[in-house]
Amino acid sequence: MKTGLASKILKGDASAAARLISEIEDETAVALEEMSRLYPHTGRAYIVGITGSPGAGKSTLTNNLIGFFREKKMMVGVVAVDPTSAFTGGAILGDRVRMQTHSADKDVFIRSLATRGWVGGLAKAALGAVHVMDGMGKEIILVETVGSGQIEIDITRAADTTVLVLTPIAGDEIQMMKAGILETADVFVINKVDKGGADLLRAHLELMLSMKPQLPGEWPPDIVLTEAIYGKGTEELAVEILRHREFLVNSDGLEQRQRERIKLELMETVEGYLKDFIHEIDQGDYLKKLVATLAQGKTNPQSAAREITARLGRDLSRLQSSDRANRKAS
Amino acid sequence: MKTGLASKILKGDASAAARLISEIEDETAVALEEMSRLYPHTGRAYIVGITGSPGAGKSTLTNNLIGFFREKKMMVGVVAVDPTSAFTGGAILGDRVRMQTHSADKDVFIRSLATRGWVGGLAKAALGAVHVMDGMGKEIILVETVGSGQIEIDITRAADTTVLVLTPIAGDEIQMMKAGILETADVFVINKVDKGGADLLRAHLELMLSMKPQLPGEWPPDIVLTEAIYGKGTEELAVEILRHREFLVNSDGLEQRQRERIKLELMETVEGYLKDFIHEIDQGDYLKKLVATLAQGKTNPQSAAREITARLGRDLSRLQSSDRANRKAS
Repeated sequence: MKTGLASKILKGDASAAARLISEIEDETAVALEEMSRLYPHTGRAYIVGITGSPGAGKSTLTNNLIGFFREKKMMVGVVAVDPTSAFTGGAILGDRVRMQTHSADKDVFIRSLATRGWVGGLAKAALGAVHVMDGMGKEIILVETVGSGQIEIDITRAADTTVLVLTPIAGDEIQMMKAGILETADVFVINKVDKGGADLLRAHLELMLSMKPQLPGEWPPDIVLTEAIYGKGTEELAVEILRHREFLVNSDGLEQRQRERIKLELMETVEGYLKDFIHEIDQGDYLKKLVATLAQGKTNPQSAAREITARLGRDLSRLQSSDRANRKAS
Repeated sequence: MKTGLASKILKGDASAAARLISEIEDETAVALEEMSRLYPHTGRAYIVGITGSPGAGKSTLTNNLIGFFREKKMMVGVVAVDPTSAFTGGAILGDRVRMQTHSADKDVFIRSLATRGWVGGLAKAALGAVHVMDGMGKEIILVETVGSGQIEIDITRAADTTVLVLTPIAGDEIQMMKAGILETADVFVINKVDKGGADLLRAHLELMLSMKPQLPGEWPPDIVLTEAIYGKGTEELAVEILRHREFLVNSDGLEQRQRERIKLELMETVEGYLKDFIHEIDQGDYLKKLVATLAQGKTNPQSAAREITARLGRDLSRLQSSDRANRKAS
């Protein structure tokens, strides 16, 4: 299984990067192998999460930011995550169209990820794609995700700077507050300010932010106004992102964010292993017999679940030793 | 912890039922205890899953079906599941309003369940609510869920009869096919036929159904046309549901569906236990140290994940023996 993907990626090879991200999405053995080679060379890129409701203008803003960072001669990576696309269809295509201004620029690498059924794996795949782009030498990686649920919260936690894009049009800010995103955003963007109502939304936001207790040494989130389709406010936003990076570098914030990201990826990987084991149990006769016992009312789901969990435990505790044996044998 | 909820529920006590469902949602020890008492007395109710896109008219159809089954003197339970409501808000309230025709009827028990963050637990809570209503003596339980994702597929698999509600308005049928629901529905409803386009949708559906190989002894799904807001087609739909029940009773289908349901509940319970253990690991110093090692590039997420998994295995394999010890001691 010597595909050499990792070493090609470290030289900046875009097609090797594209291939490895596909392998990560498919959770193949190649992905495992190449990622463990790539991993020690990563951790240098700066990761910016861009989130907000569908239609808030995230892709247009992302496109503008690519342009700004490219002018500064930075190497840029973009991961566009759409957890809803299995059901809504075309969103991703639209995003790609909006970002194609930069598709001919070889120092920009853009990849879209959509759910393949199990949303849980998406955050892991997104972080995998980030590592790949990091390994390619991208200095800034923009992770764009639709604001609707766990994956967004995960990616928000995993980014160095989180940008929340709101519009004065809908009651977005209320939804975001419910989802716990408002508390974690580092930069707020009010986009589509030409539609009116931006002042009211700004006042609302400022009120909410003022209600949050500000700890000493903590970053005070700022609000940037943009009109993404006319390119207005791009520089202000980019400067704010870089200002936040500066702040993190000068505190221990950057390290904290990195650890949060590592932890998230680690736990997602653990959950992936567990899913595999559960799938295995799901296939066998053992489960069939247990279900029959339940159907006869001879036990209850709680006791039966504990029995399975204990069995799973015995299987899992054998995992590491056999894994070690394999490593010695190879 | 002798709350006596299970024995009250077995006598048909609605407030005890409401209380136990809340305990199930909160995953309390009371829920565990009372459910294991209730469980041997369940398994008699007939479970009908009603699914479809938001706005397809599921709640109105459900309300109509309640009326029909009540006229036949059947005891009816309704579980309305809304996995999206944490973000969209009001949906549940709307459903309750639509079903309130029957709120004064003590032989109808209606309960709404919304996600409390982790969607994964919702299918388990819904099945728990079904057990409670089953224990109360409800003969038919309607489980209404919005068609958008894993929870719907789970509940579809767990129902005895699955009704898929489509409308001629949008391209719903395509979305449903993607989600794998079309393959598992037993009865198709085309609602809002007064809006026009029903014939085309029917032709589409029939074509798709004809492309699915029909195995001998398999139920051939039928299509029912309704105008739910005018009550039109309710009887045809109810008759079709009862005809499917008859079919299952006369084959081994009913038992198969029941086992599918038991299996789903069992595996959801197992996943719940695993989440608890993962949460425990998440809190400790152990994970912090491992993350630090990763941050230094001394290991990779895959190896670290295997180490955690093995540790989890050792914890889990101790679960059953300590559980047994507890039972002997009590």
